[in-house]
Amino acid sequence: MEAKDKIEIVNKYLDGVTNHDMEAIRDIFDEQATVEDPAGTDVHIGMEAICKFYEVGFSAGVKLESTGPVRCTVDAAVFPFIARASGIKIDVIDIFEFDENGKVKSMRAYWGPENMSSE
Amino acid sequence: MEAKDKIEIVNKYLDGVTNHDMEAIRDIFDEQATVEDPAGTDVHIGMEAICKFYEVGFSAGVKLESTGPVRCTVDAAVFPFIARASGIKIDVIDIFEFDENGKVKSMRAYWGPENMSSE
Repeated sequence: MEAKDKIEIVNKYLDGVTNHDMEAIRDIFDEQATVEDPAGTDVHIGMEAICKFYEVGFSAGVKLESTGPVRCTVDAAVFPFIARASGIKIDVIDIFEFDENGKVKSMRAYWGPENMSSE
Repeated sequence: MEAKDKIEIVNKYLDGVTNHDMEAIRDIFDEQATVEDPAGTDVHIGMEAICKFYEVGFSAGVKLESTGPVRCTVDAAVFPFIARASGIKIDVIDIFEFDENGKVKSMRAYWGPENMSSE
């Protein structure tokens, strides 16, 4: 899996979340994937739990905006962005880990209260 | 360990590397810490190996510049920056994980060839 493929998936994710496109989410994640947002809190395990998690964000009108280049390593992509929802702005960094099929097997989102501001 | 303490250590790290200050490095990392830069490559284990790794960067005149806010979770801090050395610029994101004593127990740096440019 080349870096350009990882970057394409990251861009599909940013657009997919912003457009509230659940099909994009289903296509990006592996069926058994895990999502931890923010890192250190309860892990959403498997596609249905992941879709429920994003459904909450979609209902709040979430939009994502890249704030810097995607950093790729052998099996991961890390990228900074701003998430906006309900008048709140959050600076986030996500880590995607990929499996051998090019699907995201784990996502961890790094952010804390200090990264939130109203706008 | 509060977010402000983690952010202070990140700033000490960015300044310490930029000033080629090995005492700062020794103060930030635990004696048994690990450094993986970039993530997915050989891990430097323990203080002496870590200092040797930074010595190489210091010899190349490395300077670091923050490019966005530090994101803190319960036991980690993640931060984007630019590293400059020998006419090369690299967009990097580092993850620090902290132990119960407030020392960095692991650092992983995320970047790839796509993040390098000459300047």
